[in-house]
Amino acid sequence: MHITPTAAGVRPRVAGDREGEILEGVLDVLEDVGYDKLTFDLVAAQVKASKATLYRRWPTKADLVLGAIALVKLCPGDDDVPPDTGTLRGDMHALACTDGELTSRLPDLMTAVIPALHRDTELTERFKESFVAPRQKMIGDILHRAQQRGEVAARADLELLAAIVPALAMHHTFVRGQGPTEAYMRGVIDDVLLPACQAALNT
Amino acid sequence: MHITPTAAGVRPRVAGDREGEILEGVLDVLEDVGYDKLTFDLVAAQVKASKATLYRRWPTKADLVLGAIALVKLCPGDDDVPPDTGTLRGDMHALACTDGELTSRLPDLMTAVIPALHRDTELTERFKESFVAPRQKMIGDILHRAQQRGEVAARADLELLAAIVPALAMHHTFVRGQGPTEAYMRGVIDDVLLPACQAALNT
Repeated sequence: MHITPTAAGVRPRVAGDREGEILEGVLDVLEDVGYDKLTFDLVAAQVKASKATLYRRWPTKADLVLGAIALVKLCPGDDDVPPDTGTLRGDMHALACTDGELTSRLPDLMTAVIPALHRDTELTERFKESFVAPRQKMIGDILHRAQQRGEVAARADLELLAAIVPALAMHHTFVRGQGPTEAYMRGVIDDVLLPACQAALNT
Repeated sequence: MHITPTAAGVRPRVAGDREGEILEGVLDVLEDVGYDKLTFDLVAAQVKASKATLYRRWPTKADLVLGAIALVKLCPGDDDVPPDTGTLRGDMHALACTDGELTSRLPDLMTAVIPALHRDTELTERFKESFVAPRQKMIGDILHRAQQRGEVAARADLELLAAIVPALAMHHTFVRGQGPTEAYMRGVIDDVLLPACQAALNT
């Protein structure tokens, strides 16, 4: 196991690559059995770590699962800064492509976590805070900049417009049983989002 | 318990109002504990019926749950015939309003059933067949008629357009934790679906 260098008397902590490995293992367990049936025992067996190691870094199951989901959300060079290509279409295509790569596991995770959200208020709030809100903010930022450039009408409902791409991606996943392709996402942007933005502009 | 009249030697069956009562009870249990934890014992206790009574009519848990979901889908005078008001906007508003009334329990049910869909292939297929497909077909029929009237371009992707309203309704439910209002659905139709249909018309 990889451990960080520690001062005398300080317990070793899970860090760096090993943390990533463990959270990958959490994703595997989550996709396999769902949130309700995920236990520290299952994760410990999956990643060949002691439960004590897990508990030190992630005191609760919610911590563990949200940590794993955060891992999926991140990708190299992304770091939550939305694309800025100069056009709404360019920004959204850049985001959807990025999303396509980094969130290939997202559909399975959503179906694994959503039922728990339904019954666990604390998890729901933390999930929205750490996962839904940053994504919404990123698309919201893109739409806001587009609005300032005159690509979206001042009176448009940005919250509704911001929901279009994630909503259709989620729906596609549920209906087809697999995440959307990049081509599908481009169709959603070009044939649904942009017309909705332009319609708001013309009225 | 209501039972149907039976010939001598034939076991009484669950029927009519009592069937509806039982399926309502299934919905209650489903919303409460989710699909995975729903058992014939819990349902029997909820509806004050014997498990034998339940098994005779619904041999498996999937039968019971899909029966209950079918109940929610139906409403008086609806019976799976899409509205036909003469305009796309009129049809979709009629459908969304109808949906708003008849599917107030739908969001909770979706979150209760979706995790099971993730792990149960047979349930997934039957769910799509009995629940997703008829709804998609209804919106598809409306869009097809609109296309014939010239309200939607011949080259438009009807499948993508048909997904807009259910996708945003589902997304709203997950993000806000409650089903969409009628006003929200009208916004989705007027500000997203119709512009997407009209954009396809002009290109």
